[in-house]
Amino acid sequence: MSKRKIKLGAFVPGISQHLAGWRHPQARPQDNHSLAYFVELAKTAERGLFDAYFLADIPVSVDPDRTANLGLNANNTGLEPITLFSALSAVTQHIGFIATASSTYEQPYSLARKFASLDHLSQGRAAWNVVTTAQPEAAKNYGLEQAPLPQARYERADEFINVAQKLWDSWEDDAFSYDKASGEFFDGSKVHAPRFKGKHIAVDGALNIARPPQGYPVIVQAGQSEDGRELAAKYAEVIFTAQQNLSDAQSFYRDVKQRLSKYGRHADDVKIMPGVSIFVAATEAEARAKYDELNSYIHPSVGLMLLHALGGFTEDLSQYDLDQPLPAHIGQLSHGASRQQLILDIARKNNFSIRQLYQWIASARGHWTLIGTPAQIADQLQQWFENDAADGFNILPPTTPASLDDFVDSVVPELQRRGLFRTAYEGKTLRDNLGLKRPENQYVLARRYTEHAS
Amino acid sequence: MSKRKIKLGAFVPGISQHLAGWRHPQARPQDNHSLAYFVELAKTAERGLFDAYFLADIPVSVDPDRTANLGLNANNTGLEPITLFSALSAVTQHIGFIATASSTYEQPYSLARKFASLDHLSQGRAAWNVVTTAQPEAAKNYGLEQAPLPQARYERADEFINVAQKLWDSWEDDAFSYDKASGEFFDGSKVHAPRFKGKHIAVDGALNIARPPQGYPVIVQAGQSEDGRELAAKYAEVIFTAQQNLSDAQSFYRDVKQRLSKYGRHADDVKIMPGVSIFVAATEAEARAKYDELNSYIHPSVGLMLLHALGGFTEDLSQYDLDQPLPAHIGQLSHGASRQQLILDIARKNNFSIRQLYQWIASARGHWTLIGTPAQIADQLQQWFENDAADGFNILPPTTPASLDDFVDSVVPELQRRGLFRTAYEGKTLRDNLGLKRPENQYVLARRYTEHAS
Repeated sequence: MSKRKIKLGAFVPGISQHLAGWRHPQARPQDNHSLAYFVELAKTAERGLFDAYFLADIPVSVDPDRTANLGLNANNTGLEPITLFSALSAVTQHIGFIATASSTYEQPYSLARKFASLDHLSQGRAAWNVVTTAQPEAAKNYGLEQAPLPQARYERADEFINVAQKLWDSWEDDAFSYDKASGEFFDGSKVHAPRFKGKHIAVDGALNIARPPQGYPVIVQAGQSEDGRELAAKYAEVIFTAQQNLSDAQSFYRDVKQRLSKYGRHADDVKIMPGVSIFVAATEAEARAKYDELNSYIHPSVGLMLLHALGGFTEDLSQYDLDQPLPAHIGQLSHGASRQQLILDIARKNNFSIRQLYQWIASARGHWTLIGTPAQIADQLQQWFENDAADGFNILPPTTPASLDDFVDSVVPELQRRGLFRTAYEGKTLRDNLGLKRPENQYVLARRYTEHAS
Repeated sequence: MSKRKIKLGAFVPGISQHLAGWRHPQARPQDNHSLAYFVELAKTAERGLFDAYFLADIPVSVDPDRTANLGLNANNTGLEPITLFSALSAVTQHIGFIATASSTYEQPYSLARKFASLDHLSQGRAAWNVVTTAQPEAAKNYGLEQAPLPQARYERADEFINVAQKLWDSWEDDAFSYDKASGEFFDGSKVHAPRFKGKHIAVDGALNIARPPQGYPVIVQAGQSEDGRELAAKYAEVIFTAQQNLSDAQSFYRDVKQRLSKYGRHADDVKIMPGVSIFVAATEAEARAKYDELNSYIHPSVGLMLLHALGGFTEDLSQYDLDQPLPAHIGQLSHGASRQQLILDIARKNNFSIRQLYQWIASARGHWTLIGTPAQIADQLQQWFENDAADGFNILPPTTPASLDDFVDSVVPELQRRGLFRTAYEGKTLRDNLGLKRPENQYVLARRYTEHAS
């Protein structure tokens, strides 16, 4: 068996991960709706042998009638991930595609079909990042007055993934006979209908597409809450998590891996991949200068808006001196609570001024941030990887495309020199590259048990 | 002004239009989930200078627990049109993409986003074929016990297109400033939210994608009923219709074009494109042999199943002599009524035997069928085109890929020789090629009126 290797996701929005990264001289925000631009980015990530390209998504944009635009910024416009990745399928060979889609607002029959279609188009490179979409504005875009409560959202997510897997299993792998001589197009005994009636979801019939090449697209999840961890333990194969230091990352890693056995799963069935924002250059001083440069582009009002939105602070922070710490007592809203607590903890632990806090959030929205030389960055990643804190990382380049190029050209070769990262793709599908099993069809499994029992 | 030219849609499923077309020696049903195969087909259609590639879709597959599989056949599995066309966007230059999607079961915010994304990916080549999905099985795949009644489906379709247009107008064409110097990413006065509350649909916020290159994707519609015609007159820019003879086609053409003025639209704002199934060869006898060959592949039981499903007959037709006409009195279900009446009319008018009737339906599901030499085919198309019966045609090749090749290689050159069809694409977008105006943004229009009034 070959040595365990780091898995890498490229979390690369068209505009930029850092709040003000689009103001970098090389940034190309005007290309945010251009397929040609994303083809370049995907090919760079593929040159860097990334396992997958990862795109976030939220069914909400800026609100023209609110000055604050809570939680929203320029990244809230752009190409839709499933369609964009479908297009990229035609012009890439190896890289996987992690598309974010909401289990709260999408319809299972439609979404399962689209992911199956993406998996066929890409010949087995599709993954679904399941999000439950906490934002209250999203509910209003789908005819609801307010978002369902977290518990209801997670119950629905559970039912959604469950029925999606049934839908993907509708046609056994060898159901289609295509027999021109006899006229038999498919074997009717190898078609199955979910007949699913849950608390939140009902889906009756078979899906109108063949079983995906990967069996199921890879399931990705990012919840940090108790409900989120439990859903991840049950279904997730990749976990995108925000961790700030080795010991917290180890504790999360251990917690989730331990939960798997309850669902008959093995620790290797899930790859835990924390997000990490990387500023890298030949010297530490140059790397630090890159961090400072992007921060210099942040308008204080925009920084405070982000802090307000992600931190959920109930007071207007502009009334305080930005170069002093947050006041000792400060109110926070309750939705998205784990992220909000993290932000407050970081502020207290580092004794950040308000300005330093929004600068820190601006670069990676609460994810781990590394600033240094390729060797320094690799040291840190290696430490986490080799000490039960991570199976890989989702790389968050602060400015697109420059920081992605930096990572591919300097950190990837360093990781390869250390034998920590692949020098060629291992297999054809995303599952092959991630080292994940292709799931068996549940109806075939059920038949095998029945036959064995009788 | 250049001479009016025929518009052409390529209605080409991966398996085949003719019920048994997949049994043709050159058919490749095993490639139905292969992007490479559809790239070949799209490039053939583009070589033939088709305006658009057209794909039907229905969110239902075969039912494993019913022997009859009402209304369903091998075409009810395959790649999803929006994702497939997104992939084809990356490897084609000119051809438009007409994707079918249901206004009854999709969510407006999600669907408007996906069509906008396809329009950006293809640089202005997207079209949406709006269907209301009559099939009762579809409702059960979306948590409903039964399909909404036709009137409710059409009311919802009206609201759906209305709100989709508002969503596409969320960002004015020049809303994004991308000003790195000032830090202004967009001009907040050029963002608009629908704030839409209808009887069936409510959508609050702005769409999370820039306005599509075409303003709106081209709206395509195929309803023949009174409700369908009225919806088409209000919104449709391309109408896909099933007409059997010149006088019926003229009467439909006149009726729809006359309805437009009620909505402030001009007769040229909609292109009426009947479907036509074409068997073409160097001699009429060879063309007839192609028709007979495909019909010889139809199992009587499959033919009767199709007749049962599309005709909505309430009796089991296998009890009758297949080589005799339908009995004088025969019951029919009520949903999809216009198609069912058409089938009965055709049977009576031609004095078809039951076998001849299912053979006729098997080739084009009730669409016009032409069998002959390139000149004979062109004569017929020219007659309809020059006599107010059609602005173009949706070509239904009976077997894929052979019949598409036949049409491109023999009928297209004949139409070009007659000056009836383009010899090069006129413009960059589907609207350019179809001769359709790019719609103005409704919020810009409203502001202009307000400014003019004040």
